[in-house]
Amino acid sequence: MSAFDELMAFQRETEALGQIMGRLGWDMETMMPKGSANQRADEMEALDGVLHGRRTDPRIGEWLDNAEAPDATGQRQLDEIRFEFDRQKRIPAKLSAELTRTTALAHRAWIEARKSNDFEAFAPHLEKVLGLSVEKGEALADGGDPYDALLQDYEPGASGAELDQMFAELRPRLVALRERVQGSDRVVPELKGDFDIDAQMRISAKLAKTFGYDFEVGRIDKAVHPFSSGSGRDVRITTRTDAKNPSDCFYSTIHEVGHACYEQAVSPDLYLTALGSGVSMGVHESQSRIYENQLGRSRAFTGHLFGLMREEFGDFGIDNEDDFYAAVNRCAPGYIRTEADEVHYNLHVALRFDLERELVSGRLSVSDLPEVWDARFEADFGVAVDQPANGCLQDVHWSEGLFGYFPTYSLGNVYAGCLHAALRKDVPDLDASLLEGDTSAATGWLRENVQKFGKSIPAKELIEQATGKAPSVGPLADYLDTKFGDIYGV
Amino acid sequence: MSAFDELMAFQRETEALGQIMGRLGWDMETMMPKGSANQRADEMEALDGVLHGRRTDPRIGEWLDNAEAPDATGQRQLDEIRFEFDRQKRIPAKLSAELTRTTALAHRAWIEARKSNDFEAFAPHLEKVLGLSVEKGEALADGGDPYDALLQDYEPGASGAELDQMFAELRPRLVALRERVQGSDRVVPELKGDFDIDAQMRISAKLAKTFGYDFEVGRIDKAVHPFSSGSGRDVRITTRTDAKNPSDCFYSTIHEVGHACYEQAVSPDLYLTALGSGVSMGVHESQSRIYENQLGRSRAFTGHLFGLMREEFGDFGIDNEDDFYAAVNRCAPGYIRTEADEVHYNLHVALRFDLERELVSGRLSVSDLPEVWDARFEADFGVAVDQPANGCLQDVHWSEGLFGYFPTYSLGNVYAGCLHAALRKDVPDLDASLLEGDTSAATGWLRENVQKFGKSIPAKELIEQATGKAPSVGPLADYLDTKFGDIYGV
Repeated sequence: MSAFDELMAFQRETEALGQIMGRLGWDMETMMPKGSANQRADEMEALDGVLHGRRTDPRIGEWLDNAEAPDATGQRQLDEIRFEFDRQKRIPAKLSAELTRTTALAHRAWIEARKSNDFEAFAPHLEKVLGLSVEKGEALADGGDPYDALLQDYEPGASGAELDQMFAELRPRLVALRERVQGSDRVVPELKGDFDIDAQMRISAKLAKTFGYDFEVGRIDKAVHPFSSGSGRDVRITTRTDAKNPSDCFYSTIHEVGHACYEQAVSPDLYLTALGSGVSMGVHESQSRIYENQLGRSRAFTGHLFGLMREEFGDFGIDNEDDFYAAVNRCAPGYIRTEADEVHYNLHVALRFDLERELVSGRLSVSDLPEVWDARFEADFGVAVDQPANGCLQDVHWSEGLFGYFPTYSLGNVYAGCLHAALRKDVPDLDASLLEGDTSAATGWLRENVQKFGKSIPAKELIEQATGKAPSVGPLADYLDTKFGDIYGV
Repeated sequence: MSAFDELMAFQRETEALGQIMGRLGWDMETMMPKGSANQRADEMEALDGVLHGRRTDPRIGEWLDNAEAPDATGQRQLDEIRFEFDRQKRIPAKLSAELTRTTALAHRAWIEARKSNDFEAFAPHLEKVLGLSVEKGEALADGGDPYDALLQDYEPGASGAELDQMFAELRPRLVALRERVQGSDRVVPELKGDFDIDAQMRISAKLAKTFGYDFEVGRIDKAVHPFSSGSGRDVRITTRTDAKNPSDCFYSTIHEVGHACYEQAVSPDLYLTALGSGVSMGVHESQSRIYENQLGRSRAFTGHLFGLMREEFGDFGIDNEDDFYAAVNRCAPGYIRTEADEVHYNLHVALRFDLERELVSGRLSVSDLPEVWDARFEADFGVAVDQPANGCLQDVHWSEGLFGYFPTYSLGNVYAGCLHAALRKDVPDLDASLLEGDTSAATGWLRENVQKFGKSIPAKELIEQATGKAPSVGPLADYLDTKFGDIYGV
């Protein structure tokens, strides 16, 4: 076997083991008996050790030095493996182990602190995690910017400066739109009542099929926090149900279907290779968000969903498609990011991005975080945070050391805006089929232009190739202005 | 760290990875999407490679040479690890890989051959698997008997000669009982009708609880072939349902609960160690069978089950406990081992044990197998096999190279007989509580005398310690004579 073939065979096993790790995570959130958590931690730690050993195996370096790629995709495989290998090598084993231990404790402390609304109890943990994360960033950056270095785990090729620029353009337009919407005196209808849980799950399954999710290599279960898991030929999603709030169930499902369809659509010759999954968190989120929002919450598709609702629930208090469309797009300046509407969502993210950059740079101390968070929130949302659990204690990310993750959410929305504009240009009569519950023109376009490539084209290049221009904030901001201007008459 | 501690830490990770392998098997049979089988094969092959690498890791030999056990259990840990390590080392890597590949093909060929009733299509595969298994047995035996060597995978410490002796005593008594039962003119009632599947699963869950299965660290799902999977703090069972045959569901559940309770009851200080699961297939089967038969199909417990049936199904055609007891113990000389009643079951196993010993020794050729099987079946069961799928094509074991597995089923029944006799002596008023649906006296006795020890006491020694005498065929044969003599008036 050539060095290239040996490396590919080794990588294939590593990817397969990585899939197993994902499956254990899925099982933990869906099927695992309550009392099995400690044993599962041992199991995952053992597998993590195996994976870490493989990812830093010195043979990878030798193979890389001797491998000759047979073609451009082969070269991209080598580049991707080298990128990961070099990063892994830069992190001292001691630091890696300490991060694992510290974030495990911090995560548990965060759960308790959020429950008891007690930032002080979480602060020392956050300080430790932040310190180790900065250390990791410095080890990775090799003299460069630590935040940029951390960012590469989630959005390879992106930089803090670039994202700064993105938010600098996006934020004022969102604040302005948010103010117009808040100032509107139009009364937007609201979904009210009790909606049978089983009926919600039936509609969810229909929606998943409608958006092209392949149940032959997937399944839907319930979980507290919806997610998609797995790549290639085993991609599972979860959703959640709340009798009072059926659209949370439906749009969680469509969102996760967007992630899952991306993984299911990756070209089969890339399965179980270094290029066999989504290229970045940003592009991943662009798929989930365009499925959920630009398509799923469009006037056309909500017309179809209204019909599904009537079939299952009969008269549920809203009696026409237009009111239903307005209801599922209702805006409110809530405290919680994960419950935010399209207008407010990216304001939540912008806040976190700015604050985590300050934290990592050392310009903001952990003890000052609640005060700075609350001031910024009031400025951007027009309301004051009432308690830490609704403020800087709400997100899991920092407790797990995921500095650099947040901005990819907004980057995904910006990419979704760009892709949506290009899609509408290529498929001008899209609304007619969406109204009929046929998403194939849209999902087929995304499959062909984005999803099938896996990691074989870098993120920004991929979006540029799909849309014909460099990604920019304009399309998303224009789309939001038009849509919510229309709904709120502003 | 001392060599002993290092070895224990290494073993703990290996055990944890082994648990993950079990979970993947569970997922495959219960949750996995249909189209995910090929990717799953890659995933399991990768994990199998990791496990094989760890089990033959030369460091184990070094640690074993330098380790000092802190106590008797520690010594037993070392003995167990050395036993496995020595066995693994004796099998050449090439042979191991060839066995894996050949049995994978043979297994698929067997499925097809059974479907099309075509022994000729399976014969060449069986010949290959048999050849490689003999080779493996010879490598392990190191000059000794290959069948005995293979047997150690399932029943450490047992020998073919010993099992020969066991079957030589058991078989004539079973044939005689079978003839008496067949000759009886008593009409034993039969369960007939359609029994709601959901109600069957509700009763199953009640039965599992009744027999002490801990749902905090377990769950029940459906699978084509019921099984129990996992050790320690995550032990899951499956059952199956057939509207026409509710007792298949109930007794499959109780059987798997027996296996699962064994794993759940192992002493916590043995979790994720080499001693942390059931000590042998025979002892495992003794637990599943005593739960299922000596307890679950007893006159007393079926009285309780009759009540559960009436609650769910109302009048289901049998109107008193005695008739219900007879119905769930009804005997018939069927072709299929897995559907056999208590009288016939061990005759099925005896046949397979004798034939597989002949196959491994070379005295019986694969091409002669169907003829020899059919002749023996007619002699022992009094009826002729009608087609290969009901004869020598019915079991999966040989296609997977599991020579030496079959006799552990009967050994388990013999052990169950011994344990049952001792239990009845220790708990003379057991029937009164069983009739009330309280199994705690019986399951508590088994937990204390068998289950909690895991592998820390070798099988035969364990049974002897629990019962106060060396295991023998008598108690099982006496129990069967009394029970079925009573039901059939013979």
